[in-house]
Amino acid sequence: MNDQSTSRRAGGRAARRAARAAPLAENLRPVRAGLSGGTYKPLSDIDIANIHEAALTALEEIGLCEAPQSGIDYMVAAGAILGDDGRIRFPRALVEDMLAKAAKTITLHGRDPKHDLDLRDDRVHYGTAGAAVHVVDVEGRNYRDSTLQDLFDAARIVDTLDNLHFLQRPLVARDITDNYELDLNTIYACCSGTTKHVGTSFVEPDFVPGCVDMLHMIAGDEATWRARPFVSNSNCFVVPPMKFATESCEVMERCIHAGMPVLLLSAGQAGATAPAPIAGAIVQAVAECLAGVVYVNSIKPGHPAIFGTWPFVSDLRSGAMSGGSGEQALLTAGCAQMHKFYGLPGGAAAGIADAKLPDMQAGWEQMCSNVMAGLSGLNMVYEAAGMHASLLGYCMESLILGDDLLGQALRCVRGIEVTTDTLSLETMRATCMGGPGHYLGSDQTLSVMQTEYIYPSLADRTSPKEWAEVGKPDLIKAATARKDAILGSVSAAVLDPVTDQAIRERFNIHLSL
Amino acid sequence: MNDQSTSRRAGGRAARRAARAAPLAENLRPVRAGLSGGTYKPLSDIDIANIHEAALTALEEIGLCEAPQSGIDYMVAAGAILGDDGRIRFPRALVEDMLAKAAKTITLHGRDPKHDLDLRDDRVHYGTAGAAVHVVDVEGRNYRDSTLQDLFDAARIVDTLDNLHFLQRPLVARDITDNYELDLNTIYACCSGTTKHVGTSFVEPDFVPGCVDMLHMIAGDEATWRARPFVSNSNCFVVPPMKFATESCEVMERCIHAGMPVLLLSAGQAGATAPAPIAGAIVQAVAECLAGVVYVNSIKPGHPAIFGTWPFVSDLRSGAMSGGSGEQALLTAGCAQMHKFYGLPGGAAAGIADAKLPDMQAGWEQMCSNVMAGLSGLNMVYEAAGMHASLLGYCMESLILGDDLLGQALRCVRGIEVTTDTLSLETMRATCMGGPGHYLGSDQTLSVMQTEYIYPSLADRTSPKEWAEVGKPDLIKAATARKDAILGSVSAAVLDPVTDQAIRERFNIHLSL
Repeated sequence: MNDQSTSRRAGGRAARRAARAAPLAENLRPVRAGLSGGTYKPLSDIDIANIHEAALTALEEIGLCEAPQSGIDYMVAAGAILGDDGRIRFPRALVEDMLAKAAKTITLHGRDPKHDLDLRDDRVHYGTAGAAVHVVDVEGRNYRDSTLQDLFDAARIVDTLDNLHFLQRPLVARDITDNYELDLNTIYACCSGTTKHVGTSFVEPDFVPGCVDMLHMIAGDEATWRARPFVSNSNCFVVPPMKFATESCEVMERCIHAGMPVLLLSAGQAGATAPAPIAGAIVQAVAECLAGVVYVNSIKPGHPAIFGTWPFVSDLRSGAMSGGSGEQALLTAGCAQMHKFYGLPGGAAAGIADAKLPDMQAGWEQMCSNVMAGLSGLNMVYEAAGMHASLLGYCMESLILGDDLLGQALRCVRGIEVTTDTLSLETMRATCMGGPGHYLGSDQTLSVMQTEYIYPSLADRTSPKEWAEVGKPDLIKAATARKDAILGSVSAAVLDPVTDQAIRERFNIHLSL
Repeated sequence: MNDQSTSRRAGGRAARRAARAAPLAENLRPVRAGLSGGTYKPLSDIDIANIHEAALTALEEIGLCEAPQSGIDYMVAAGAILGDDGRIRFPRALVEDMLAKAAKTITLHGRDPKHDLDLRDDRVHYGTAGAAVHVVDVEGRNYRDSTLQDLFDAARIVDTLDNLHFLQRPLVARDITDNYELDLNTIYACCSGTTKHVGTSFVEPDFVPGCVDMLHMIAGDEATWRARPFVSNSNCFVVPPMKFATESCEVMERCIHAGMPVLLLSAGQAGATAPAPIAGAIVQAVAECLAGVVYVNSIKPGHPAIFGTWPFVSDLRSGAMSGGSGEQALLTAGCAQMHKFYGLPGGAAAGIADAKLPDMQAGWEQMCSNVMAGLSGLNMVYEAAGMHASLLGYCMESLILGDDLLGQALRCVRGIEVTTDTLSLETMRATCMGGPGHYLGSDQTLSVMQTEYIYPSLADRTSPKEWAEVGKPDLIKAATARKDAILGSVSAAVLDPVTDQAIRERFNIHLSL
């Protein structure tokens, strides 16, 4: 009886303890996909208006050249003006009309609906992207050519990481030499590795139909695909400055017809293919993406298109790219504000390290741009984890550690909740006046432990003494062990055997599962 | 003649190249001490008002206990109310009166005036601080006891680093066992290592007069010291929650009388000695520092006092401190906003790593809070470099790499300049329409190369190919080499020999130079 009474008395706290040991409901987790940023605003309202005005002037007076004939036809029919110099110019009223028609909210679907991304307002999502041509061997301190297996591995790792919300293809399968087979196998490897939303990037327009056929097979049929397209295409539709990328535009047209969301990606490099001042690089990226908005909406009003201002930064000493710089972080955050100004879902690049290895430099570079992108409310933070050597090398250990890094960035995005409860006056009063004089065991402390605080998975918080006692663990070795554990298990995302077999019969799939 | 004509034609660019090779004037450097932040605002205006209101209520209803009798006398004479429970309570009108009297701008002097810090508005300064008891031996992966020589070394390193703007004592000289000699030697080692502003923290009130005598000797005489006090005292004047630290208050009174600026340091730990919710920890820190403002200004209205809300964060799983967390970054940035609300110069902690070594975790932890503190416009960012194991270990390599990290953070603080020039419309026009189609050699690019872009000193931006060619340099080894070079040269800050001799005759100085 005494036992029971003791247990009953302890019941409240024991029950709370048990509740805390159980996984939290998604809406109670301290961080999750789609938290709202927007507390960081590098640009004033006047700055934004001036950038907008300069971009409109650039579109009206400079315009863009080298659109494919099909694109010229679409845009001229909508009201753009083709000059004798071959440049298409865009009257302000046309840009404003098309902004009114453009999709303001976009859902990027996961193959599993629990991974759907709702792009609107200041909602922040982190994911991979890029076209690295190397994989970093951290133990051998070596850069080797990236392969299809690496892509599949990256997809599988992303599938297990809570704070990576989508997988855009981060590296190129250089062992696939046929470009059509590269496009097919890229999608296959990504979709077999994760049920999160996948981004790809087609090499040629003619490759789109076959790949879309494969997507129909993965979805079940075309209608199911069109209802929930789980792959988007990253279109480098411009070659900055102010030139359409003819072939990529043709790819984009095919994607639009196939019901695939597109990323309007303008990847100028400040000081090389974009103006060197940060403001100028933003102006050009905004102008180019506005041209993209006109293009897309003159084909299919409201088609889901992400405003992809991705200006990069040059190290002006060498002309080489520096994705890890503070200037990059500012560019990306400034672009996010422009997306909000237009009310369009937007994406840009952050999280790139210039460092060759996952060292201290990589840590500060990746956090700088990632946290600033998140705080600025960027909807899609691309290249957020694993990317080294200014986009040339992909590192699986860094990707895994990136989950901790992005969890912390997301905690910062979530921000500070100020409520009567969190202001804590009553707790302070009870603690200080006749109370224990500390907050360690207070109900309030216990209640926020899991819902307001996030705990890293691999990052080490031990004291020096504890750290020595557990053998001074090495961060990178811990990440390698985690990688081996993930890759040693079976992918949870593989296609059902019948579909897989059908795909393999029709297409040349290079990946053995 | 032809030669001369060629040289004359090339003259403009050659002259610009030569100008770029010369060191930039201070006002042209891309980053410097005192850049203005304030673009990041985690708290809304309503949040700020609610925190202020809660802090006033806490002061009025809860108050603080354990003030020394001298402090009680000062504060009660000013209008505070001593309760039967021994707690001093502060009517709102008193707090508001004292806020009106408090110093709104403070200059923290360097021994060399070029290092003076002008604390006002959103001006940001980064520096060291703390009381680490270990030094990190990176090669041996070991934590050893910190010594006076380490303190001197840290000071000398800080003296050479552009992006460290002050030296508050970051570690404790554990080899000095007599506490009076510890206080004397701490100041001596700091001032012999750097001419930047020095922060110290006296152990006992009775040690202040002797140390101040030494400061008079370093300055030349008392009047010179009082005109430009180059050492401030960090006063942990409260033991949170809501208790004065009796002895530290007595130290503070002595410092005020000696003309020394004070840091009103409230170092609660959310979830342990402060409420666990971030908002509540800010409320308590603000309330405690407001009590400090009343205290200081009831002794000497307008005495320079830094509003030192330094709430830390607990890892609520263990109760141990986690200075590297996202929650810490939010706490610090939120506090910076409260400083602005009061119009008072303020300081808080950022840049702390939980990581034991200068690894990737350290990099992301240090950048997260440092860049957020800077963007929030924190006047004094304490503990910004070198600090590991949640304040227990100091690492010289990390301090040196911190200069690159903080340079990048400062570049972000500087932000995006939007002007007719930087919008770059004319450059775009010239480049795209009949121009070269890129910006690599444009005058604009060359002109912003040094003034708008910052280049890291040790962080590596080579391509994988170049990196392999130069032997795959290791970041930490490069930092160790830099450390050895700095410490292998003579300190530029040593006292003049006559003063040094006089100090050594009067005080027991343990440091051999």
